[in-house]
Amino acid sequence: MTKNKHKESQKGKSQEGLTVKKEENFSEWYTQILQKAELIEYTSVSGAYIIRPRTYFIWEKVKEFFDKKIKEDGVRNAMFPLFIPKSNLMKEQEHVEGFTPEVAWVTKSGNSELKEPLAIRPTSETIFYPAYSKWIRSHRDLPLRINQWCNVVRWEFKNPMPFIRAREFLWQEGHSVFETKEEAGNEVNKIRDFYEEIYREMYALPVIKGKKTEKEKFAGADYSLTTEAILPNGRAAQGATAHLLGQSFANAFDISYMDKNEEKQYPWQTSWGISTRSIGIAILMHSDDKGLVLSPRIAETQAVIVPIFKKGAEKEDIDKKAKEIEKELKENGNRVIIDDREDYSPGYKFNEWEMKGVPLRIEIGPKDLEKEQAVFARRDNGEKQEVGFNEIKEKIDKVFEEVHESLYKKAEKVLEEKIVNAENIEEVTNAIEEKKIAKAYWDGTQESEDWIKEKTGGAKILCIVEDEIPEEKGKCVYSGNPAKHVVYIGKSY
Amino acid sequence: MTKNKHKESQKGKSQEGLTVKKEENFSEWYTQILQKAELIEYTSVSGAYIIRPRTYFIWEKVKEFFDKKIKEDGVRNAMFPLFIPKSNLMKEQEHVEGFTPEVAWVTKSGNSELKEPLAIRPTSETIFYPAYSKWIRSHRDLPLRINQWCNVVRWEFKNPMPFIRAREFLWQEGHSVFETKEEAGNEVNKIRDFYEEIYREMYALPVIKGKKTEKEKFAGADYSLTTEAILPNGRAAQGATAHLLGQSFANAFDISYMDKNEEKQYPWQTSWGISTRSIGIAILMHSDDKGLVLSPRIAETQAVIVPIFKKGAEKEDIDKKAKEIEKELKENGNRVIIDDREDYSPGYKFNEWEMKGVPLRIEIGPKDLEKEQAVFARRDNGEKQEVGFNEIKEKIDKVFEEVHESLYKKAEKVLEEKIVNAENIEEVTNAIEEKKIAKAYWDGTQESEDWIKEKTGGAKILCIVEDEIPEEKGKCVYSGNPAKHVVYIGKSY
Repeated sequence: MTKNKHKESQKGKSQEGLTVKKEENFSEWYTQILQKAELIEYTSVSGAYIIRPRTYFIWEKVKEFFDKKIKEDGVRNAMFPLFIPKSNLMKEQEHVEGFTPEVAWVTKSGNSELKEPLAIRPTSETIFYPAYSKWIRSHRDLPLRINQWCNVVRWEFKNPMPFIRAREFLWQEGHSVFETKEEAGNEVNKIRDFYEEIYREMYALPVIKGKKTEKEKFAGADYSLTTEAILPNGRAAQGATAHLLGQSFANAFDISYMDKNEEKQYPWQTSWGISTRSIGIAILMHSDDKGLVLSPRIAETQAVIVPIFKKGAEKEDIDKKAKEIEKELKENGNRVIIDDREDYSPGYKFNEWEMKGVPLRIEIGPKDLEKEQAVFARRDNGEKQEVGFNEIKEKIDKVFEEVHESLYKKAEKVLEEKIVNAENIEEVTNAIEEKKIAKAYWDGTQESEDWIKEKTGGAKILCIVEDEIPEEKGKCVYSGNPAKHVVYIGKSY
Repeated sequence: MTKNKHKESQKGKSQEGLTVKKEENFSEWYTQILQKAELIEYTSVSGAYIIRPRTYFIWEKVKEFFDKKIKEDGVRNAMFPLFIPKSNLMKEQEHVEGFTPEVAWVTKSGNSELKEPLAIRPTSETIFYPAYSKWIRSHRDLPLRINQWCNVVRWEFKNPMPFIRAREFLWQEGHSVFETKEEAGNEVNKIRDFYEEIYREMYALPVIKGKKTEKEKFAGADYSLTTEAILPNGRAAQGATAHLLGQSFANAFDISYMDKNEEKQYPWQTSWGISTRSIGIAILMHSDDKGLVLSPRIAETQAVIVPIFKKGAEKEDIDKKAKEIEKELKENGNRVIIDDREDYSPGYKFNEWEMKGVPLRIEIGPKDLEKEQAVFARRDNGEKQEVGFNEIKEKIDKVFEEVHESLYKKAEKVLEEKIVNAENIEEVTNAIEEKKIAKAYWDGTQESEDWIKEKTGGAKILCIVEDEIPEEKGKCVYSGNPAKHVVYIGKSY
């Protein structure tokens, strides 16, 4: 015991357990998990975080998945500059108002003042579109669909929160241009479906699909489609959005083309993005009081092999077997490590890898060796099963799929429980107080929208459910006027 | 003719040929190729360029290649913040002096002044190492090897030049920490070999390997290893560097560990990077008076199939065959397109794809169809060969490898011709005047180094040849004192 304690202090704090429970203090629990599972490091700049390897790996996997999808669909990647001249940023009125309060400005290089301040991109419409104006001449140049993976900066006033509200974050932003509104509409629908797939297939998370209200849409867009995640504390988090920009940017940036009849037309545009916020959503949703829980699809280490022995004599045989299994699994394409550190007890190792979210532990002890088997211990539900050495390879991928499925189902159940139907403003308010999301009727006016926020102490309309139409006699929960939309109402990050 | 001309004007300028020759006006030739082959778009910020899809694709391929290499070698990726507080940047003295004159400073967010100005990373030592100081406690935490792929900003005073000297560029920067100097030394050697491999295997380019002089090394490093490319105009371009940082950053940022004997030690560090500058080097080296020339390994489109027909009746059969071949090649993993645009002549299409650097054109005309063959036309040397339809798939990858090999060999020949041995300062000066690189003896003093620059009108010591030692009686080309090193001297970007 003394020995291990000593090692612990040497290794820093990462092996200590969490001191608060997720149910009791959600925000402190999150702060602890981010540090103890080595997901984030803070810097001296508030809101600027180091994305550590374990979490950056997640982003790489998400990137790979989405990048393949959009490339197969004909989108090309490029890289536009980080800096946007002030005059560009100011060209589209609504966009200006939406973004300028949060812009970080470069005003100096070395010791010299710049002639014109440069905005660090909070989003890149205003640097893409002057180029689009040059590139698009004819209907033959359309559709034009370009994406970039990059960092953006939004100096928000609200308290920063790693991944969820960071001042710098990573994302992809796609910008496409079409001849018709219909094509642009199809694009945003398709992309939102891709985003839903990312959440489902990579993060093992169900999301709500909907449309933002006029008030909540992207600054400068005709409308915004969204995927919303509902977290265990009853708060929603916008998960990824796709905007139909309409023709306002085309007008502001003079993007036009000659159609087949040699007539000048303004095209229809879209923009769409998913960011590293999604990593935070996944951590918040699946993790537990022991630490990080992740789908094996995005885990840097999918399985850790822990040899267990008491006598030195056993050690050699067990280590040898462990290495054999490691080799076999690596050849099988699994991301596996062995933890054969000698100064640490098995219990200590179990805790460490549970904290760090390794989805599967493979234990091999003396009795296991005798019986030619290992023990699989799942991180997500603690289930153990004995697996014959000769079955390990075929079993492991199946177990990973089961883990992914059961994480998804568990999160789906949470989502279902969090949503309650509300007939009137009291029921909405009660739902919010109980840390839930209300599904309710709304008359479509901003007045009602504002009042709902006021009455609920800050909950807002998260999105309009596009494919549900209120009953004919349905009334708005706030005004009592005829309902126009079914909406979700909740507090939101 | 009239019809095509009309289309040309609609499509913008990209289909016009180059109006200057590479040999006659290297810099104007480069400017034209960048725009006409759609490689770069200028923005209103000097030195900030849009990397268009065709060139960004190159970067993605390079990234894939190097990323796989370093990951297999145990390096992990992460993402550190864009912003470095002024006080961090100022911690290592030599580093400060090297970088602060070129730093872009963020001083405002929205309308508010920031308390402390934030540097946009020109390189990330000073944001990595405060974190390393927290993470490294014990010898068990070493080696620590982390890499990031990101953008950096250096507001240089020299005239910007796309890819070669851009104010924002993309790169990877690796930062590793070891217990011993030997391990750190092995790291920089290994990484420089990886960089050489990138140039050879991706860009089809030979580079010179060497060590920077004290004057030219990375600000704050013990020494810097480099790969230098020699361009056809006789100028060198530093291609990628790996720095042995020694212990100076460990001291400045208080990175220390307890060794096996429980004694506090300072570790040995390295940092290393390759940037999008490498794309510019490849363009400058291989391209010709018809436009871009690229290795098929990094070409977004490896082959374009051009159906050729005069009568409408032929069209259908040829188009059908072209589509069959396209399908077959795509299944074979080749990046192929068909250019079946009806309003453009074959000649127009040939010019366009030659400009855009597609390594192979596959022509199918009526006679080819009859003879069940296509014509392969190589972009790099114009060679044509007839290939039976049933051989296309097996032939194409072979041809791509031949193209890569012959690009490499051609560049190797240029490199050999550009290097001349110089016995004294006149020979050095003559070499520089003839747009060549001098290989010469140097006494190792900065005085001689400065004078060589002075006498040659700006040529500098590009690097020390590490594995060549001067003859015993060898004399420095400038001072006549005993030579210490064999060096390359040349003008440089």
